[in-house]
Amino acid sequence: MRLRKKPWVKDEIFQYTSYSVKEPREWKGKWRTLFGNDYPIHVEFGTGRGNFITTLAKQNPEINYIALEQKQEVLVQAVRKAVALELKNIRFILGNANFVLDFFSDDEIARIYLNFVDPWPKNRHAKRRLTHQNYLNMYQQILQKNGSIHLKTDNEILFEFSLNELSLHPFYQLHDISLNLYRNEENLEKHVQTEYELKFLEQGKPIYRLEATLI
Amino acid sequence: MRLRKKPWVKDEIFQYTSYSVKEPREWKGKWRTLFGNDYPIHVEFGTGRGNFITTLAKQNPEINYIALEQKQEVLVQAVRKAVALELKNIRFILGNANFVLDFFSDDEIARIYLNFVDPWPKNRHAKRRLTHQNYLNMYQQILQKNGSIHLKTDNEILFEFSLNELSLHPFYQLHDISLNLYRNEENLEKHVQTEYELKFLEQGKPIYRLEATLI
Ligand SMILES: C[S@@+](CC[C@H](N)C(=O)[O-])C[C@H]1O[C@@H](n2cnc3c(N)ncnc32)[C@H](O)[C@@H]1O
Ligand SMILES: C[S@@+](CC[C@H](N)C(=O)[O-])C[C@H]1O[C@@H](n2cnc3c(N)ncnc32)[C@H](O)[C@@H]1O
Repeated sequence: MRLRKKPWVKDEIFQYTSYSVKEPREWKGKWRTLFGNDYPIHVEFGTGRGNFITTLAKQNPEINYIALEQKQEVLVQAVRKAVALELKNIRFILGNANFVLDFFSDDEIARIYLNFVDPWPKNRHAKRRLTHQNYLNMYQQILQKNGSIHLKTDNEILFEFSLNELSLHPFYQLHDISLNLYRNEENLEKHVQTEYELKFLEQGKPIYRLEATLI
Repeated sequence: MRLRKKPWVKDEIFQYTSYSVKEPREWKGKWRTLFGNDYPIHVEFGTGRGNFITTLAKQNPEINYIALEQKQEVLVQAVRKAVALELKNIRFILGNANFVLDFFSDDEIARIYLNFVDPWPKNRHAKRRLTHQNYLNMYQQILQKNGSIHLKTDNEILFEFSLNELSLHPFYQLHDISLNLYRNEENLEKHVQTEYELKFLEQGKPIYRLEATLI
């Protein structure tokens, strides 16, 4: 995902004013106002090129989606998809998941998607994994009770780490753990695939998945 | 593990009277008396040829071990190993894990080992898996508080199932989950291998492992 930095990309993202949110900190605690309704809010961290979340937004008009991605070169492609689909229930944040508590207030979020987030396979980088206890504690704050985390990955080390972090955390209940999501072929229809996921599927790699609910 | 039934095998097992326990139901609640001390008791269900539990018994004289196995043709080999090692802290039951509540009373056991138990990969046989909720409820009865289940398997379906059953169970806390135990080569020394495990290791298959503690 190394793309040359093009100066006009950021301009393009923010030109779509009904899609991109330039000052996400100003909307902390007020996302319902921005969307103009009380539908539940689902966020994705590390959206990449956006196939997953734009497809879900199309399928579920009564859910609001927020896509967060730190790299403008990929985020712009996600935004373009939303524009082309004329979606009304999605917003994009160019930003880093480290600042999640600046963007969202307590109980504001119903679901968090983590799809093929960077695995940081070296032990000494474990703190950077988006399922490290430090992140789980932040998610706990912004998630409503019974809110949940949905994670997919191809990476054995990240998945093992996530299982351990979530099972040790006192406020999450793990469930729907899968070590090979597409062992059951019906899941190809039931689940929406991301760009990375389609690539791994072509390579015949197994996909891991889990859900964890805040209790 | 299909061996021809040899009528003298059962006789051989019960001839080693300091090792085999012919009437395990009579020792329910009294295993400490049988061992003649108050050391913690660890049991293994589906012991097979016994390399794992006899090696542990040799290493840990201050723990008592009970090995349960339903097939006499393999159990006899485990008993012979214990005899050869002149172990004092191990007993063998020729029996079925279904009757665990007939063999052990409340809080009598400190740890349960499940190593490469039959995976029963078909959904309709899920109830036979030794980590089905029905079994977890029985283990909960015989295990002391802070007692634990240690499971190893090569089977993806059984491991996925076990993760889900244990995470949904309100009284077990999962931890030390590994999707590839020997990714870390130090674990070859740290963990004792079973006969099945050595075979899978030769084939280069990954070994799954988990622990769950009764809370
Ligand atoms: C491996 S890609 C996966 C993209 C997409 N989810 C998919 O499955 O196709 C990981 C993405 O997460 C983004 N990312 C990684 N860490 C992030 C963070 N802390 N905050 C926001 N985005 C992050 C990266 O820029 C990259 O686009
Ligand atoms: C696949 S073998 C593994 C043996 C040994 N644990 C190892 O890893 O080498 C499974 C063993 O569990 C035994 N077994 C299966 N279900 C059992 C039950 N319900 N009670 C007792 N033994 C059982 C079988 O007879 C068989 O010997």
